[in-house]
Amino acid sequence: MKSCFLYIFLMASLCLKAENGYELWMRYVRVQNPVLLKQYQSALKYYAIQTTSATLSVAKNELLKGIEGLTGNRINETQGTENNSIIAGTPASSAFIKRFLDAGNYHPGKEGYIIQSEKTGSKSRIVIAADNDIGVLYGVFAFLRLLQTEQNIHDLFIESSPKIQYRILNHWDNLNRTVERGYAGASIWNWHTLPDYIDQRYIDYARANASVGINGTVLTNVNANSLTLTAPYLQKVKALADVFRPYGIKVFLTAKFSAPEEIGGLKTADPLNAEVKNWWRQKCNEIYALIPDFGGFLIKANSEGQPGPQGYGRTHADGANLFADALAPHGGIVMWRAFVYDVRVQNTNEHFGEGHQEATGNAIAAEDRFKQAYDEFKPLDGKFRKNVLLQVKNGPIDFQPREPFSPLFGAMPQTPLMMEFQLTQEYLGQGTHLVYEAPLFKECLDADTYAKGSGSAVARVIDGSLNDHPVTGIAGVANIGNDINWTGHPFGQANWYAFGRLAWDYHLSSAQVAEEWLRQTFSNNKIFIAAAQKIMLASREAVVNYMTPLGLHHIMGTGHHYGPAPWVDNAGRADWNPVYYHKADAAGIGFDRTAAGSNALAQYQPEVQKQWNNRSTCDEKYLLWFHHVPWSFKMNTGRSLWDELCYKYNAGVDSVRWMREQWNRLNAYVDAERFTSIKLLLGIQEKEAVWWRNACLLYFQTFSKMAIPSKYEQPDKTLTYYKSLKFLYAPGIGGNL
Amino acid sequence: MKSCFLYIFLMASLCLKAENGYELWMRYVRVQNPVLLKQYQSALKYYAIQTTSATLSVAKNELLKGIEGLTGNRINETQGTENNSIIAGTPASSAFIKRFLDAGNYHPGKEGYIIQSEKTGSKSRIVIAADNDIGVLYGVFAFLRLLQTEQNIHDLFIESSPKIQYRILNHWDNLNRTVERGYAGASIWNWHTLPDYIDQRYIDYARANASVGINGTVLTNVNANSLTLTAPYLQKVKALADVFRPYGIKVFLTAKFSAPEEIGGLKTADPLNAEVKNWWRQKCNEIYALIPDFGGFLIKANSEGQPGPQGYGRTHADGANLFADALAPHGGIVMWRAFVYDVRVQNTNEHFGEGHQEATGNAIAAEDRFKQAYDEFKPLDGKFRKNVLLQVKNGPIDFQPREPFSPLFGAMPQTPLMMEFQLTQEYLGQGTHLVYEAPLFKECLDADTYAKGSGSAVARVIDGSLNDHPVTGIAGVANIGNDINWTGHPFGQANWYAFGRLAWDYHLSSAQVAEEWLRQTFSNNKIFIAAAQKIMLASREAVVNYMTPLGLHHIMGTGHHYGPAPWVDNAGRADWNPVYYHKADAAGIGFDRTAAGSNALAQYQPEVQKQWNNRSTCDEKYLLWFHHVPWSFKMNTGRSLWDELCYKYNAGVDSVRWMREQWNRLNAYVDAERFTSIKLLLGIQEKEAVWWRNACLLYFQTFSKMAIPSKYEQPDKTLTYYKSLKFLYAPGIGGNL
Repeated sequence: MKSCFLYIFLMASLCLKAENGYELWMRYVRVQNPVLLKQYQSALKYYAIQTTSATLSVAKNELLKGIEGLTGNRINETQGTENNSIIAGTPASSAFIKRFLDAGNYHPGKEGYIIQSEKTGSKSRIVIAADNDIGVLYGVFAFLRLLQTEQNIHDLFIESSPKIQYRILNHWDNLNRTVERGYAGASIWNWHTLPDYIDQRYIDYARANASVGINGTVLTNVNANSLTLTAPYLQKVKALADVFRPYGIKVFLTAKFSAPEEIGGLKTADPLNAEVKNWWRQKCNEIYALIPDFGGFLIKANSEGQPGPQGYGRTHADGANLFADALAPHGGIVMWRAFVYDVRVQNTNEHFGEGHQEATGNAIAAEDRFKQAYDEFKPLDGKFRKNVLLQVKNGPIDFQPREPFSPLFGAMPQTPLMMEFQLTQEYLGQGTHLVYEAPLFKECLDADTYAKGSGSAVARVIDGSLNDHPVTGIAGVANIGNDINWTGHPFGQANWYAFGRLAWDYHLSSAQVAEEWLRQTFSNNKIFIAAAQKIMLASREAVVNYMTPLGLHHIMGTGHHYGPAPWVDNAGRADWNPVYYHKADAAGIGFDRTAAGSNALAQYQPEVQKQWNNRSTCDEKYLLWFHHVPWSFKMNTGRSLWDELCYKYNAGVDSVRWMREQWNRLNAYVDAERFTSIKLLLGIQEKEAVWWRNACLLYFQTFSKMAIPSKYEQPDKTLTYYKSLKFLYAPGIGGNL
Repeated sequence: MKSCFLYIFLMASLCLKAENGYELWMRYVRVQNPVLLKQYQSALKYYAIQTTSATLSVAKNELLKGIEGLTGNRINETQGTENNSIIAGTPASSAFIKRFLDAGNYHPGKEGYIIQSEKTGSKSRIVIAADNDIGVLYGVFAFLRLLQTEQNIHDLFIESSPKIQYRILNHWDNLNRTVERGYAGASIWNWHTLPDYIDQRYIDYARANASVGINGTVLTNVNANSLTLTAPYLQKVKALADVFRPYGIKVFLTAKFSAPEEIGGLKTADPLNAEVKNWWRQKCNEIYALIPDFGGFLIKANSEGQPGPQGYGRTHADGANLFADALAPHGGIVMWRAFVYDVRVQNTNEHFGEGHQEATGNAIAAEDRFKQAYDEFKPLDGKFRKNVLLQVKNGPIDFQPREPFSPLFGAMPQTPLMMEFQLTQEYLGQGTHLVYEAPLFKECLDADTYAKGSGSAVARVIDGSLNDHPVTGIAGVANIGNDINWTGHPFGQANWYAFGRLAWDYHLSSAQVAEEWLRQTFSNNKIFIAAAQKIMLASREAVVNYMTPLGLHHIMGTGHHYGPAPWVDNAGRADWNPVYYHKADAAGIGFDRTAAGSNALAQYQPEVQKQWNNRSTCDEKYLLWFHHVPWSFKMNTGRSLWDELCYKYNAGVDSVRWMREQWNRLNAYVDAERFTSIKLLLGIQEKEAVWWRNACLLYFQTFSKMAIPSKYEQPDKTLTYYKSLKFLYAPGIGGNL
């Protein structure tokens, strides 16, 4: 047995080596619980999967790889259906599965699956059944999740299918491999070596997405590059589509509205021009000849310098329908982004892109940016083709730590609305802060629009049930880069995971998803899970508190959005300035969006307005989103607004300190490399939380003229110091990585 | 035993998982040879290392990690010196080692070590002894190399010390994490998260360098950024220096000559100005206060748009001595680059940097660029301070597949010359071609300058022995990025490895180094080694043949240097144009550098001139470097020059096809992931070799008017097609990754 112990030891050492995060939540390491291990080993002795398609082949390989890693069993194939076997397939691939589905009159649906323990006489089997091959793959991943999270697999009966049809990652990746708002290294798409070089990462990316039910990916930045649609790049896109296809993932591209002029040699890109229509039709034919299941286009038009139909005197509907008509014959869709604001400025440098503010001298007064998406699109409701989805960011401004839901969700019954969440933490500490976003996603999805009275949650708008839309979608702006662990911060993986799981089933709770992810990614140890889950669930409120408590928003550093800069007032547009959003003055702070102010509140249903339009009854989470409030205003806690602001900023810092302490107790449960990485990152997060608190309180104090109560830690640096900080190479913007 | 087999299987599966190349040549996987495994296991039961310093601690950890991985032995510490123990240390750390060195009257020297089998009575031990801690670490890595390459460890007697003092990597890494001429992803230096976040990569980078004896690293691009020298960045540099210190690696920076104006607020950077001198003195004091063992500066001045002393009417010596005087009190050195040419053009965009050519309209006629470094620096011999090294690229132009050695190596006896090799394959197929560079390095180091008569090899200039220089150095421009496997192409690791090994001992043969690397990186299987070594040793001549045979040079694509573009004639400077270098016309092809031409040959010693100045006797490898030769010229083979050119280009393609066939036979010996990766890359290499051959022959044919002999594969595309290719996002230039 001595040599055996050597192997054990060696195995352990290799395990440690392997723990660099690359394997995400698909580590398939040996089950630790001895009772369950025995159960799994005895229940999983044979398998039967007819690999009649590429999808069924990858399903089989994943199942065997998972079972081998988790149980040590190298299980044998069986033609028949031996005792202790696992049988997976569709009616088309397996007569057994056909009988099974018919007998139970089961209809898993387009992507759904059934996992069931099945006993006939002495034989006990596990069945993974689906109507289509992709359902089998999803079922296999769901089954492996049971083992990875150490669930009992006796008497299984699981039936699952996705609530939303298109579950898509949006990559803001540029052709030069920089990633706009990316904080995890370079783009994983190596355009130079495609199509001939297939990086193992492309395959593992597809596996990771399929494991959580993500079924689409937009490869390129919404600040688009026409070259993407030229022949050499379409060959590269085809190579990726071929890799992703077996995993049920469709490829989408961003289309630049001006492409017909830039690469088509036309004199216009007017969406009503016959030549332009024809050019896009031909372009779609060219794409579908290479990629028969191409998903369609995501388009950012007439926003932040991107060209669009309004440049030709046309509407967003004219623009979207141009693409819709070209894609329709092939079954493609258009995802038209509602993130547009005042098009009077067209000179934005696209390099600085999404949500950018840059000092370019004289500001142009703009309407309340909060209102612009609604004002642009509400009148167009009903004017879009059937294969157009309007992609709306969760909030009215831009991925802030907390936003009220966008009023559009309650305002366009005739148009399928697609949710756009952001996984990359542009305004949430970027690559170095632990912020678990599921609570943010849920807060928006659960919010009631009252569009059809009480119970008209945003989720029911997105899943099409509220207004009977057959086409539905949800998008997450990816936080993926070529860092070894994919997301830079190890906990960034949880946001990728949570997006996929909630896109499949938004009824899952943040706590459930966090536990699932922790068990698969780190350990099934109960002490570890309890502590790490608490950290995750506390993290989102922490970042709200140390960055933008009580409804403050968009007071981040100019352009790169890194760190606090509430003092900035010289950006190129009024609504690029933090001062525009907090409106702090001697009288108070906050943006009056009541009828007395910009009246943005009027864009919501009356019941929603009621929640927010009175500063005395308004949920304090949203207070400064809708009201300009005196510094001495008495809050629910009895504190003045100023004292409450001091309290919240300090509470945010305290939470991060608590997160650090909690994490530092967990070293026994996590491999050294990932433990240390997270420990160091929490150190940065604390430092930056203090920076946020001090900079913001010192600045707002110049208006409130009130003291920071002595019971709180006092700023150790001056406002002048914080204002002096410059970050020329902050990542995620203008070619910086 | 069943469970034992499960462990074995599981271990194997984990092994495969781990084989993504991240671990480089330090995999420490189980020794396969059962006889040697037994030998190692019985000889390595105990260890004795007093960890009286950080360096000895990492030496101990590396030794234990290595022995455990390679043999499975978890060996025990011994205070005494049991039988079958390994004892490592210095006279200061170990009385045993002191006695051992005294008894043998051994003097390993500053960085050297001794590895010796030592028997007293019944006790048999292995001793790793050094005068200094770093020697112990080098000895530990050398000992682990013996085990990794499956050498007998009975009766060891190894004494080794480096021939060259400064063995340095040059990173052309920018602060935004793009890497100039980098083809392996982004910079591994994450400036944004430094100094608080220490990536595991920084530690593994230090381990890898120490394992091959590299003892210095220049962190930043020679096209320098003054911000590097500001306080926040110096804190980041200090954090890296602290990580590297235990591994004997000193940190260096590039200094921008104009920094006193850009960040110092001075009105000039004139090297003779007192304020400027003082500014640099203060800056050095500031740096050394943070990094007591800071190495010094690498400086590119008055070259390709970089500012320099000539901008102030001063000489390169004035410039270099400015820094030398500021560094001298702290023991730092200046590495002043000799890569300079015609400074009449100062408007180059530094973004496009090293070796760049860009179409900017009217070309400026320049002197033969071949001659310029010599003309600039020869007159300055003897005018540099003692702590200045002149860093000279191996060839007179710019890292071409083959260049004659730079004439400077034979021309500056009073100045210590430092070799600059390029590991990153800017002109050698970049990230996708398998090109083992050791033969290129050796060809240059072995070349005889005849500076002091026969036997004055370049190596003896570099190691200081020819002209008795106490300070010596060699630099390699790094091919490292944040790709998981560090170098993009798995065989790129071999060039990093070979540079280190040859910098330590240039007497090693290319074949030896290749075998060492293959054994550690892939397998000790003899069939595998024989085949893979053949591929490596053939690869450099292959790339010469399919890119630039017979002495052709610098006919690569404009700016990005990707692919062939011998037709380019519109670059901003005459000597940025390929046509300037090949001078093809109806009469023939090649650059006449004899007395009848530019007379660059006169820069060499007479004996060297004799080798090359007669086109009938000139080594045909260098023919077109020095002669304009008629198309019909009769070559040694009896072929005409044109036919020989056709033969060579086809021979290059054939070699790559042979390399592919050879590799495809080796799948049984390599894990699937790395095997497939290399297989795909060889496919790209063949495609691009054909591209090179066809494009060059079709273009040169427009002058030769001769047919490509029918026995050769005929081009399948037209010259117009090849000329039409554009690569806007070729990696390694202008912010592209």
